[in-house]
Amino acid sequence: MQIYDLIQKTRRLVPLSETEIYTLVEGFTKGEIPDYMMSAWLMAVCCQGLTAEETSALTMAMRDSGECLDLSTLGVPTVDKHSTGGIGDKTTLLVAPIVAACGGHVPKMSGRGLGFTGGTVDKLESIPGFCVDLPQADFMRITEEIGCCIISQSGELTPADKKIYALRNLTATVDSIPLICASIMSKKLALGASCVLLDVKYGHGAFMKTPEEAVLLADLMVSVGHQAGRECRALITDMNAPLGSCVGNALEIAEVIRILRGEERGRITELSLALSAQMLVLLGKGDVVECRKMAEEALTSGRALEKFAAMIAAQGGNAAVTEDLSLLPQAEVQLTVRAPESGFIREIQSEEVGLACLGLGAGRTADRAKIDPGAGVVLSRFVGDEVTKGDPLFTVHGSSEALCENAAQRLLQAYSYSEEYTEPPQMIYKIVE
Amino acid sequence: MQIYDLIQKTRRLVPLSETEIYTLVEGFTKGEIPDYMMSAWLMAVCCQGLTAEETSALTMAMRDSGECLDLSTLGVPTVDKHSTGGIGDKTTLLVAPIVAACGGHVPKMSGRGLGFTGGTVDKLESIPGFCVDLPQADFMRITEEIGCCIISQSGELTPADKKIYALRNLTATVDSIPLICASIMSKKLALGASCVLLDVKYGHGAFMKTPEEAVLLADLMVSVGHQAGRECRALITDMNAPLGSCVGNALEIAEVIRILRGEERGRITELSLALSAQMLVLLGKGDVVECRKMAEEALTSGRALEKFAAMIAAQGGNAAVTEDLSLLPQAEVQLTVRAPESGFIREIQSEEVGLACLGLGAGRTADRAKIDPGAGVVLSRFVGDEVTKGDPLFTVHGSSEALCENAAQRLLQAYSYSEEYTEPPQMIYKIVE
Repeated sequence: MQIYDLIQKTRRLVPLSETEIYTLVEGFTKGEIPDYMMSAWLMAVCCQGLTAEETSALTMAMRDSGECLDLSTLGVPTVDKHSTGGIGDKTTLLVAPIVAACGGHVPKMSGRGLGFTGGTVDKLESIPGFCVDLPQADFMRITEEIGCCIISQSGELTPADKKIYALRNLTATVDSIPLICASIMSKKLALGASCVLLDVKYGHGAFMKTPEEAVLLADLMVSVGHQAGRECRALITDMNAPLGSCVGNALEIAEVIRILRGEERGRITELSLALSAQMLVLLGKGDVVECRKMAEEALTSGRALEKFAAMIAAQGGNAAVTEDLSLLPQAEVQLTVRAPESGFIREIQSEEVGLACLGLGAGRTADRAKIDPGAGVVLSRFVGDEVTKGDPLFTVHGSSEALCENAAQRLLQAYSYSEEYTEPPQMIYKIVE
Repeated sequence: MQIYDLIQKTRRLVPLSETEIYTLVEGFTKGEIPDYMMSAWLMAVCCQGLTAEETSALTMAMRDSGECLDLSTLGVPTVDKHSTGGIGDKTTLLVAPIVAACGGHVPKMSGRGLGFTGGTVDKLESIPGFCVDLPQADFMRITEEIGCCIISQSGELTPADKKIYALRNLTATVDSIPLICASIMSKKLALGASCVLLDVKYGHGAFMKTPEEAVLLADLMVSVGHQAGRECRALITDMNAPLGSCVGNALEIAEVIRILRGEERGRITELSLALSAQMLVLLGKGDVVECRKMAEEALTSGRALEKFAAMIAAQGGNAAVTEDLSLLPQAEVQLTVRAPESGFIREIQSEEVGLACLGLGAGRTADRAKIDPGAGVVLSRFVGDEVTKGDPLFTVHGSSEALCENAAQRLLQAYSYSEEYTEPPQMIYKIVE
C-alpha cells in the first residue's frame, strides 16, 4: 500500500478503509512513515474532513498503538470524564471526589497542560508531596479503595496520539473535529473505563468557538464511544467566561477546597454538580434528578471533601492542606487591581485571562517547562456583577512586581462594561447522548 | 515570523504577503524550515488555493532562490517554450529548429522525464554523442550562432523549485494550479528569455483533465509572465490522444527527423507549426498568418532540418542521424500487434500508452534511473481511422519478448472502437494572451 495514494485519497475526499487507516497510524508510530507525509495527510484531514467511519477507525488505530488498561478486574463499573479544556477549569478535581463519595469509581489519567495554565496533574502537584506518577497497580488499588485516583497520562498508552499531537502542534493542524475526537477518544478507550462523560466547551479560550461546532465534536465522540461499547454522554458547556474565581495551579486547588468545604459556590459548582450527576447516571445510580440530589448531598455533607483528603493522602500528599490552605505554595507578590470605571461587567474574555496567566508563569510554552505553582489570578467580580470605580476587580499573584504589572495591564483589557445588567452566559447548552 | 502562523493563514484562506511567501521559500530552500512544515503548507495550498498575487509572489520567490541567466547580452529577443507534458510530445524538437530557421532565437532548458517516457533531453541523448550538459557560455554561443540550443536544466537555477517539487512528489501535492504555475514560471523567468510560449494540455495523461482547468492554469501563468515583464501567450491543446505516431526516446527522435524531412505529417506537425507561428509572433516577426506561412516554409524547404542537424553537431552529436535513422539505438525485439476487431478507432487512451511505455523501460519511476533509449511504441493507426480485423495496429519495441507482450496487452486495452467515424479531438482549444 502506497502512503502517497492514501494522502491523495483523503485530499480527494475518497474515504480510507479501516486497514488503510491502521497502516497510516501504525507506520507513523513505528517511524516508517516520515513526518512530512503524515503532516500532509493531517492537513488534508483538516481541510477535507473525515467520515464518521474513518474517524472511528482512526480512534481505534490510535487506541491500539500502545497498551490498553483492563479495569474490568475491579469488578465494578468505572467512569472517566474528559473536558476539552478551558480557563480555570478545575471540574475534574471536584467531580472525582463527589462521584466517589456517592459510591462511584473514577479512575482518571490527566494531561499536563501545554497552554494557559498547567493541567489537572500540574495543579495537583502544587499540593506538597502529591505524586501523579504511580504504578498501574497503585492506580487500580487507590481507585478501588477510595473511589478516585488522578494520575499523569502513561507514556505506554496511545503513543500514536502523542506522536501525532506533537506534529499537529507544529503544523497548524490542531483544530480539526475528527483529529480532536480521535485524540481524546483513543485515550479514553485505552484507559478502559466502562463509562465516559465528556465536557465539550465552546467560546473564547476553547477550541470550538460556537456551540454548533461543539455539538458536532460531541456527537462524533459519543458515537465513537458507543461503537467501542462504552456508556457515553457529553455536556456542551459555555467557556466565554473563566470558570470559577481562580486561574492558576495552587490557587485553583485552594478554590476547590473552599468549594468542597462549602465556603464558596458559583457557576463552577453548578457545572461540577451537573457533570457529577451525569456520571452517576452513566454508572446506573439512578435518574438525573436522583443523581443530582446525591451529588449535592455528597458536597454539602462534607463527604466529598473527605474523599478528596483521602485521595491526597493515598497519593502521598499532605492532606492537611484541606484544613490549612496556607500549606499551599503562595506567590511572593500579590497585586490587587481596582475597577477603572463603574458599570455592569458585560464580558471577561477568558482567552485573555489565560494569556495573562501564561505570562505570569502559571502555564508552559514548551514541553516539560517548569511552571510557577503559586502564580495566577483571583477574580473578585464576575460577568453580570455591578462594580463601582475603585472596587477591587482582581488580584494578580506572581513572582515579581514587573510580571504582575504586565499581567494586570493585559487583564484590564479583557473586561468590558455596560450600563445595564447583562445575563451571564448559560452554563449548559445541551446534553448529547 | 512564525511559520506555524503562515500555515494557519493559508489553511484559513488568509492571503500571505509577499514578504511572508519569500520567508517560506527562502527558509525551506536553506533547510531552516523542516519538510513536515512545508508539506503541511503545500497541502493547505492544494486544498484552499492561493490568490493570483500570492501565486505571483511564490513564482518570484522561487525564481530568486538561485541564479538567473542574463540573455540580454545576446542583443536579440529570445523565445522560450514550455509544454505541461503529454504522451509522445516532441514539439520542442520541432519548433526549436523551425523558429531558428525563421531567424528566431530559442534558448531552451528542458527537464529529464520522471514519468511515462524520458523528457526532451533524454530523447536527445539517444542521439550518439549528443551532450545536454553544456556550460552556460556554450549554451549562449550556440543559441546565438545556430538559433537554438537545448540543454538540461541547470541545478543552479531555481533550487527552491527542485526541493519543493521533490517534496510534492512524495506528498500527493503535485496537481495544484498555483503550485504548477509557480514551478513552471519560476524556471522560465530564471532562464530569462524575453518571450515565453506555453502549451497547456488537457485530457487523459495530462495534469489538467478538462479544457476549463487548463485555461485557469494558462491564465495564471500568462498573467505572472506579464507581471514579470515578459511577452507571454498560451495555447490550450488536446492531450486525449497520443501526439504523433511514436512514443519513446530514439523512436521520437526518428519521428522528428522524418517530419523535418517532409516524409510524415499529421496532428503533431500541425501543432508544431501553430506553436512556431505563435513564437514568431511573440518575437515580432509578423502577424499570426504571416508567421504561420514562415514556419511552414521553414519546414517544407528543409531549412528546419538543417538547423536541427546544425544543433546536433554543435552539441557534440552525430548529425548523420538526420540522414541515416539506423544510427539511432534500436530495440532488440519488435512485436507488431494486429487489430482484434473491425471498426473505427474511437479512442486511444494516452495515459495507458504512457504506462505501457513506462513498463517497457522508456521512462523512469525513480530519479536518475536509467532508461532504455530504444524502447517504446509505434502506432500504425490513429483516432478516426477505420481498421479491419487483422490490420497492423501498433508495434511494441523493447528489450525482451516478455516486456513487449506485457506492454501489448496493456495497449490493446487502451483502444476503443465504434461502428461510425469519430472526429479526432480538436487540437487547439483556445489561445490565451
